[in-house]
Amino acid sequence: MSYFRPAIDAMTGYVPGEQPKSGIKVIKLNTNENPYLPSPKAIAALASIDPDTLRRYPDPFAYEFCLAVSESLGIPKDWVIVGNGSDDVLNILIRAVAEGSDRQVVYPMPTYVLYRTLAAMQPAQVAEIPYGDDFRLPIAELVAANGAVTFIASPNSPSGHIVPLADLRELARQVTGILAIDEAYVDFAEYSALPLVQEFENVIVLRTLSKGYSLAGLRLGFGIANPKLLSGLFKVKDSYNIDTVAIAVGTAAMRDQDYKNACAAKVKTSRTKLTSDLKNLDYTVLESHGNFVLTTPPKGNAEEIYLKLKESGILVRYFNQAGLSDKLRITVGTDEQNQALIDFLSTL
Amino acid sequence: MSYFRPAIDAMTGYVPGEQPKSGIKVIKLNTNENPYLPSPKAIAALASIDPDTLRRYPDPFAYEFCLAVSESLGIPKDWVIVGNGSDDVLNILIRAVAEGSDRQVVYPMPTYVLYRTLAAMQPAQVAEIPYGDDFRLPIAELVAANGAVTFIASPNSPSGHIVPLADLRELARQVTGILAIDEAYVDFAEYSALPLVQEFENVIVLRTLSKGYSLAGLRLGFGIANPKLLSGLFKVKDSYNIDTVAIAVGTAAMRDQDYKNACAAKVKTSRTKLTSDLKNLDYTVLESHGNFVLTTPPKGNAEEIYLKLKESGILVRYFNQAGLSDKLRITVGTDEQNQALIDFLSTL
Repeated sequence: MSYFRPAIDAMTGYVPGEQPKSGIKVIKLNTNENPYLPSPKAIAALASIDPDTLRRYPDPFAYEFCLAVSESLGIPKDWVIVGNGSDDVLNILIRAVAEGSDRQVVYPMPTYVLYRTLAAMQPAQVAEIPYGDDFRLPIAELVAANGAVTFIASPNSPSGHIVPLADLRELARQVTGILAIDEAYVDFAEYSALPLVQEFENVIVLRTLSKGYSLAGLRLGFGIANPKLLSGLFKVKDSYNIDTVAIAVGTAAMRDQDYKNACAAKVKTSRTKLTSDLKNLDYTVLESHGNFVLTTPPKGNAEEIYLKLKESGILVRYFNQAGLSDKLRITVGTDEQNQALIDFLSTL
Repeated sequence: MSYFRPAIDAMTGYVPGEQPKSGIKVIKLNTNENPYLPSPKAIAALASIDPDTLRRYPDPFAYEFCLAVSESLGIPKDWVIVGNGSDDVLNILIRAVAEGSDRQVVYPMPTYVLYRTLAAMQPAQVAEIPYGDDFRLPIAELVAANGAVTFIASPNSPSGHIVPLADLRELARQVTGILAIDEAYVDFAEYSALPLVQEFENVIVLRTLSKGYSLAGLRLGFGIANPKLLSGLFKVKDSYNIDTVAIAVGTAAMRDQDYKNACAAKVKTSRTKLTSDLKNLDYTVLESHGNFVLTTPPKGNAEEIYLKLKESGILVRYFNQAGLSDKLRITVGTDEQNQALIDFLSTL
């Protein structure tokens, strides 16, 4: 007998984007990190950590951080669950609700592939519903799949499209399970689905500090939902999932919305230019509401270009999977980084 | 239909020890934190974090930290899995191996109650085997329970006893599943079961930086086992479970074994004095190999004393459960903190 559960033997782990070793100089446009430093207030909070506080266990509910979320986003302070990155909240959510074929995990494709990995661990069956033309949300098919949880990433990765609020509202109204709206990239978009958590008791909105707040290295994300929905998730959450440093630094970052918004505005301006420069090279580019673009090279030779870029020290993301194998996902970097990419692509 | 799986609706969450709000002055002897500061080298590592590194995702395998573990403990560097606290490794382990009644979770009682909580989430059946007199390990009964994983905390909490290496070796030899030896408190003990991971392919040893290294607030633990056993655990581990700050600070702490050992020596001296002072007050005290003692007040009125201590600003741990309701678990603090406790108990 294997030491492991059959579900574990059967699955493959999630493969994250490449993380070059520190000291190796690359232009890193492959994992949608923010090109700008975290808020000066967050940096100051890091510098002022009292080492004596590290001796003690952290606050299990990260109260100070929840208060900052509550005041920054205008939601009650007991409507927040904090995770070690929003991946931790995704993990908690799937573990709390999904199993087998009766309680399956539903999402449109293409989207964040971690949903599939987390479902495989349970194991829970997944229903992967293809997006319609122009990324129209397939509401009827999603509802018919009857998920214990339905995930909609909006803005979505890798496509970059944002789902109309009216469609999300309609989906929330029709599904019988939980609707989880993954807003990892919302800081680069024009609107949020946050109002839906107060309209529907089955809606949770997920956020992260990894993208808009430039804190991917800190591991901090959160979910927003009514306390009744959160009560089941708190049973699964590890007591001390968030460390003392992340609470302090994340709280300061969350309270500096102006800085985050200013960085996001710069990224959006760069996104517009990068999109136009790619189009000038005859690349097809989907309109993006995230800090990245999904683009198809004119000859469709995405893998070849990905490898050539890598050789020259520019990392972008290539997904060797159906519907994506002719495309590249390119993180919006600084204008200088984007120009270096464009210059290289021009030589091909 | 509930939003949650039946197992989640049926369970109660783990209840950690009280964490007083920052700013409230208490003598905190309830969650086995170290009374001494983290290593000066760890504090220096915290102060020298480059904020720009926080923009990027951390190293998924925390290579620098694994190297420090390898060199400090003398094990190959690919024999380490890193967790967001050792609770994360426990969680990964149970999730990878346990489910239902065929793949149950086995442990002697009393011990760390998180094993039960994590099993309930799967759900997996548990077999809780009472310790024999004088905390003799019930080897035959543990083997007969046929666990997918058998947990032995050594030194054990709340009892403080350590399991003889010969007993652990015998258990490793006889069980067909995984033997997980939870060494959270090993830094205060006379020996470790680490050699067993090289003798048996089914043994994993778990460690934490929360106790000996004074870094409970950082959330960093690890497991040591052969790569074949780790391969299944890596599938379940979140890609980015350890943050950049924890990797840097934890690496520095791990490389300063001398400082950790010096602090542990002070704690052990204080433990001897605390034990003797409690005995002078007619408290029964079990011999402890951790940074805490389990003690029975002469009148057995543990809950009453716990509440009176709390009222006077001294937190200790009271477990309202079978076999423990007449006892208190008291963390070894500084000599001054321990004296304040003894002084108060003398007045009762």
